Amino acid sequence: MLDSSHQYFFISEENQDRFVSVLKKLIERKKTKWLKRILEQIHSTALARLWPFLSDVEQNIIIGLLNPEASAELLPELSETERSELLKTKNTEWIVNRLEELESDDIVDILKGLETWEAKSIIRRFKKDYSQKIKELLKYPEETAGALMTSDFMAVLESATIETIIRQFRKVIEKDEVEDLHLVFVVNKQNQLLGYIPLRKLILEKPKKEAREIMSPPIITVRPDLDQEEVAKIFRHYDLISLPVVDERNTILGRITVDDIVDVMQDEASEDVYRMVGLAKEENITNKISTSLKHRFPWMLINLVTTSLAAFVVSLYQGVIKEYIILAAFMPIIAALGGATGNQMVAMIVRGLATGDLYWKRINWILFREVISVIIGSSVIGAIIGLAAWKLEGSYILGLIVFFSLLLNMIFATLAGAGVPLMLKLLRQDPAWGSSVLVSAITDMMGFFIFLGLASYYLIS
Amino acid sequence: MLDSSHQYFFISEENQDRFVSVLKKLIERKKTKWLKRILEQIHSTALARLWPFLSDVEQNIIIGLLNPEASAELLPELSETERSELLKTKNTEWIVNRLEELESDDIVDILKGLETWEAKSIIRRFKKDYSQKIKELLKYPEETAGALMTSDFMAVLESATIETIIRQFRKVIEKDEVEDLHLVFVVNKQNQLLGYIPLRKLILEKPKKEAREIMSPPIITVRPDLDQEEVAKIFRHYDLISLPVVDERNTILGRITVDDIVDVMQDEASEDVYRMVGLAKEENITNKISTSLKHRFPWMLINLVTTSLAAFVVSLYQGVIKEYIILAAFMPIIAALGGATGNQMVAMIVRGLATGDLYWKRINWILFREVISVIIGSSVIGAIIGLAAWKLEGSYILGLIVFFSLLLNMIFATLAGAGVPLMLKLLRQDPAWGSSVLVSAITDMMGFFIFLGLASYYLIS
Repeated sequence: MLDSSHQYFFISEENQDRFVSVLKKLIERKKTKWLKRILEQIHSTALARLWPFLSDVEQNIIIGLLNPEASAELLPELSETERSELLKTKNTEWIVNRLEELESDDIVDILKGLETWEAKSIIRRFKKDYSQKIKELLKYPEETAGALMTSDFMAVLESATIETIIRQFRKVIEKDEVEDLHLVFVVNKQNQLLGYIPLRKLILEKPKKEAREIMSPPIITVRPDLDQEEVAKIFRHYDLISLPVVDERNTILGRITVDDIVDVMQDEASEDVYRMVGLAKEENITNKISTSLKHRFPWMLINLVTTSLAAFVVSLYQGVIKEYIILAAFMPIIAALGGATGNQMVAMIVRGLATGDLYWKRINWILFREVISVIIGSSVIGAIIGLAAWKLEGSYILGLIVFFSLLLNMIFATLAGAGVPLMLKLLRQDPAWGSSVLVSAITDMMGFFIFLGLASYYLIS
Repeated sequence: MLDSSHQYFFISEENQDRFVSVLKKLIERKKTKWLKRILEQIHSTALARLWPFLSDVEQNIIIGLLNPEASAELLPELSETERSELLKTKNTEWIVNRLEELESDDIVDILKGLETWEAKSIIRRFKKDYSQKIKELLKYPEETAGALMTSDFMAVLESATIETIIRQFRKVIEKDEVEDLHLVFVVNKQNQLLGYIPLRKLILEKPKKEAREIMSPPIITVRPDLDQEEVAKIFRHYDLISLPVVDERNTILGRITVDDIVDVMQDEASEDVYRMVGLAKEENITNKISTSLKHRFPWMLINLVTTSLAAFVVSLYQGVIKEYIILAAFMPIIAALGGATGNQMVAMIVRGLATGDLYWKRINWILFREVISVIIGSSVIGAIIGLAAWKLEGSYILGLIVFFSLLLNMIFATLAGAGVPLMLKLLRQDPAWGSSVLVSAITDMMGFFIFLGLASYYLIS
């Protein structure tokens, strides 16, 4: 369980249980010294992963034993619910002391989870220019570059020499003001971004050289209002570890680091999957029943309406079903195969748009390719069940109706599966929003309409 | 379109068209000097994104104009199909020269896409110990830490002084041997990993200090056989930018950098979405029709079988449907609402397992919560359509049958939606594999069985 070559324990899922029970026992027996020693060696991330298995009392004892820095670092690692539970038990003083240890992007995240009055009274206690900085950051809407960036960075004037930069660098590191410093920004007197100096140049260049001589121009910059999904694409395409955020005058506002982007990608991926099936992105495995129900119920109602429409279509054709009762058995085949095809298309379009692999110009080609491959595939499948229908019921007309209904519904499903997310995108909505749910409902309805419509036309008469 | 403050053009999707047509015109008019000057300023990533819009001839002209380093850097950015098309037109000599410019992980990726004989003849031309290194890397299976890592890193002995480390560092940087150098590994004479030195310490510490005095112990290390999804989790949880890979004796084998992890996360996210709906992960928006069909057809067959089972269930109850034809209209409501609920559950479990938020210990609680919230939700929905059935058909028994069928099928769908991916996980398969497709089929079948079974029991008799 302990590996002495590591600075921190790495706790695998298998060891987690054992580790939690050790912690619980130590707490029960009040072995404070032991506990402290162990806690000092657990990475805040690992501790956060144990959190759900500890009782409120145990959590409180542990928080009490952590030094201010360690308890501060734990806060951004907890889930929003866990954090707000914890902070409820702490006074403003305590929270302010912890927040002062953190990067500005984490501070803003935590403040957003608090009641407005509490957030305000906390901000008031920061140093004046820092509280101004935090207020600025709080203004950026969620899921934008502005909300992701930290305003803690190191910038030097273009005329600064390596010597002075290193001196300043030493101060920043010693005061622990800026974390994850991979590079130093170079600005002019108006704070406009001119370039950056990677750390290796500070090591390799001569002390007398000036920033402007050795800086590299910025590979790419973004504005604070850019959507976080776009920011993630830029990181992915350009293999960045740090990205400067500037305003329209090219004044440097902050920087986004790759560790936050890794989280964004995770969230955006879950969001796509969730939204496709009609789940809110706030939906989470750790939610309470009431929260879960609040998010789910509206979609149940939407489903009720859409499926009622499908039921209505069926009810229009009661006559032909009564006469050829076997139609009721073939109905679900045609609906389900259409639904499966439609959802595959939704998945491809939603992910294509998310990764940026899908250009608008490619759409015609993709639709053409998909329709062709669906026509070929569903001709084979349609022939199989068409033949089955013919043999079972002795009606070749029924066989043909099954064949053509399947073919038409699958083509329709392909177009609907592409059309729904693309339409949502054009309407500037998330293309994933309930698209799978809608497409399933549409293909059900259309499948019944085609199948029962053809049947009532060709079988009765 | 051009922004002089950038080292490279950033080409947005809107500008892409204009930019491509400028390139095409310059090629047509043989403005070689202009072309060269523009190409020098395009980042390889941006150029790769234009690739699909250029003809084979145009691509070849551009490749010819790029300097060896730029054409080398383009290779890893192209899709596998695009790259193999390009490399087919080049001889071994050309390829070897380009590969020598790249990191070992990219070299291995490219070699894997070539014919075995060609890969072998390329490896033979590398320097002897380098070709040995590449051969080692080629052995690691896809989607493991070993396949992600590069064996290009910088390691120093524990007794090395800062002075000598910086001298060595300068050589490495000048020879451009190792890219993305964020830290220096410290090893003993047996090449076992002892710790690492972040670049900032090379700047701040005194020249006479030894590596062992200033190194930090490694936060975490991984073995080469660890699955890439697990590697991504570690990066995410520990906010890493570089992770050492070691063997069982703690000998350093290589390092994984965060830019590769960002790609892994993207791929794994798409894989989840694709597999849920029964698409192969190789399925891609740029595939040919035959490839697309090859991946899709087996799933169409599986769907055919599962939906035929649902149809079979319906066919067993032809009698009761004939008598109460309205049942045919209510069938799709019960099936579709069950399917929607089942798929929501699949989405939550698949993503929960992927992100690591879902512990096995939490599953009981989650199932309990979901079943409760589904019982509450579907009671309301069930009451609405139950009442509708009663009013429409004047049979309160039908109303009750609709109500209870919906309730039971939605509870069942919740359990199936959790059960299918969890079972796949227990069988050490990808929990996403077709789970959405299977759950839809299962809930259809079960919905018909419950609904028509109850109807035939209570309505006929």
